[in-house]
Amino acid sequence: MQRFRQLASMMSVEHAVILAPMAGGTSTPALVAAVSNAGGLGSLGAGYMTPDDIAKAIAEIKKQTDKPFAVNLFAGGYDGTGASDTAAMLKLIAPWHERLGLPPPVVPAGLLPPFEQQAEVVLRSDVPIFSFTFGVPAAGIMRQMKDRGIKLVGTATTVAEARALEQAGADAIVAQGSEAGAHRGTFIAALEDSLVGTIALVPQMVDAVSVPVIASGGIMDGRGIVAAAALGASGVQLGTAFLTCPESGAPPAHKAAIRAARDDGTMLTRAFSGRLARGIVNEFAAAMRGHEDELLPYPAQNNLTRAMRTAAAKQGSADYLSLWAGQAAPLAREIPAAELLAQLLSETQAALASIAS
Amino acid sequence: MQRFRQLASMMSVEHAVILAPMAGGTSTPALVAAVSNAGGLGSLGAGYMTPDDIAKAIAEIKKQTDKPFAVNLFAGGYDGTGASDTAAMLKLIAPWHERLGLPPPVVPAGLLPPFEQQAEVVLRSDVPIFSFTFGVPAAGIMRQMKDRGIKLVGTATTVAEARALEQAGADAIVAQGSEAGAHRGTFIAALEDSLVGTIALVPQMVDAVSVPVIASGGIMDGRGIVAAAALGASGVQLGTAFLTCPESGAPPAHKAAIRAARDDGTMLTRAFSGRLARGIVNEFAAAMRGHEDELLPYPAQNNLTRAMRTAAAKQGSADYLSLWAGQAAPLAREIPAAELLAQLLSETQAALASIAS
Repeated sequence: MQRFRQLASMMSVEHAVILAPMAGGTSTPALVAAVSNAGGLGSLGAGYMTPDDIAKAIAEIKKQTDKPFAVNLFAGGYDGTGASDTAAMLKLIAPWHERLGLPPPVVPAGLLPPFEQQAEVVLRSDVPIFSFTFGVPAAGIMRQMKDRGIKLVGTATTVAEARALEQAGADAIVAQGSEAGAHRGTFIAALEDSLVGTIALVPQMVDAVSVPVIASGGIMDGRGIVAAAALGASGVQLGTAFLTCPESGAPPAHKAAIRAARDDGTMLTRAFSGRLARGIVNEFAAAMRGHEDELLPYPAQNNLTRAMRTAAAKQGSADYLSLWAGQAAPLAREIPAAELLAQLLSETQAALASIAS
Repeated sequence: MQRFRQLASMMSVEHAVILAPMAGGTSTPALVAAVSNAGGLGSLGAGYMTPDDIAKAIAEIKKQTDKPFAVNLFAGGYDGTGASDTAAMLKLIAPWHERLGLPPPVVPAGLLPPFEQQAEVVLRSDVPIFSFTFGVPAAGIMRQMKDRGIKLVGTATTVAEARALEQAGADAIVAQGSEAGAHRGTFIAALEDSLVGTIALVPQMVDAVSVPVIASGGIMDGRGIVAAAALGASGVQLGTAFLTCPESGAPPAHKAAIRAARDDGTMLTRAFSGRLARGIVNEFAAAMRGHEDELLPYPAQNNLTRAMRTAAAKQGSADYLSLWAGQAAPLAREIPAAELLAQLLSETQAALASIAS
């Protein structure tokens, strides 16, 4: 596990086990701090947050931990895939609004908060690690981050994307396997070609770049951590595993869906945000199958479905929620993050001993 | 690696490294025997072969090795997905025939040779290990095999399929991850839901059944073998890794395509056989995108494209061939099978030492 120790040392943490940044309120400051306090690396998924909210969340994390943590932003993502006309989609979603007792749907205008302004908050907040997905930040931003001593962690779904990130100055690269829950980080490859499984992706990426590779996608326990190490990874990033912790902000209905998950129970869908993401099949995702051409581009589809998702979370109805989850979701545990990290570490030792025997 | 030794002992081989059965002439008797002679388990992919040809191939293997080997058959596969009318498909493929200088396409009648007659040859030929995919053989056949002391190895792409195989009496189960090249073995799950990556699938399957699980999909070197062991697998099955060996019967154009492969260079397609399979994207597979509704059911589509594939193999044209390959194809080596197996074993020791450090 020498590579794990080297990456941990680079990130100034005890263990190269990273909480995946789960945007939309799942990776709360409490969850981020709990993982960091336990010796891992917490990550705030701040892609959807305003600069002010990011600053507040960072302050809150710092109140709860003096250990390193990461802030994650969306460096792109606007690929334009989706319907230019909203009429068909509005008609499609209307009955779902009715069933939830919501007013007729509208498409709220607006993109996400500007990346540059979000990154500016990271820059001036003494955040030790900046991670990003959906693309590569502009060279100027990368340079400013480096000048402040901030470590840069990019996300790649293919070898070509990993090479682009290394060339842009990334200090480490998350290899996002096709098993991973939530949004695909793909930014060069075609989405349909970028669904490379972790066991195939990691060794190819390790061979292609000289910076550390962090395995993600389908890793839920010590067995997965040792597998990642064997493949040449220097660390692991886990999302679904931490999503069911009490500190996570995922709605109870989302956690319940993971509790009931099956290995073949997830699907890739653009139904909730306009960008391809993996979640547990539910009524809304299933109903949008065959309507791919009517879905709006990201983030318009995300804006459109927000009212439905927010109401559904309040009403505890999993059938209208984006139930992001990876393909190993059935291995999830509902225990506090610190306890989970401790279990992961002792399982890692057990798995190492088991294959050595 | 204790589980690997236990499975090897059950199969009476030195190493629990299995040559994936590659039907259509790729796993030649020479390749099967080479892997078995080197201490692994060779497998004859006999799904498309007549009973007489299977008997001949088994005799040929036995001439070349006195070590155990497996014969693999298709226990099902006729799921009926595909167009009932052939006119549109015949029109689609006609220009491809023209370019190859072939007469106009026809759909040769006929299914595959009857499974029962194929299995009868296995039964009476003292084959030590019988493996199968696409389903579960009838209870009577399983019973007869067991009575003769033949070990039974099924193929599963989901936990539910693994449970069904265990219940039917399988002695071991191949977990086919979504990374795997060629045909999906799926027989219960919907194909679109069964694309579970190896790193997510193996531990869930290991937890669900009590028979040994053999990892397959994306494994090309010692790193993948140790990763599989860490996940709880008792062995590994490699196809693409052996496809480029000189003993393999894959056409030179197929081997050349693997030599030039990229991690994101494969796709899942029904274009060649009517059943979903993973191969390197080429002109024919790409041209059939968007024509999914016109493709014929398996094996009619396979019968239809055989003339094109055979002519293309002779003419050395990769653009008309089914270029089956897994997602880690770029890690392939073109060395004799015995040498490859020796390298895999020494890499396994190196990977074990590396993560122990």
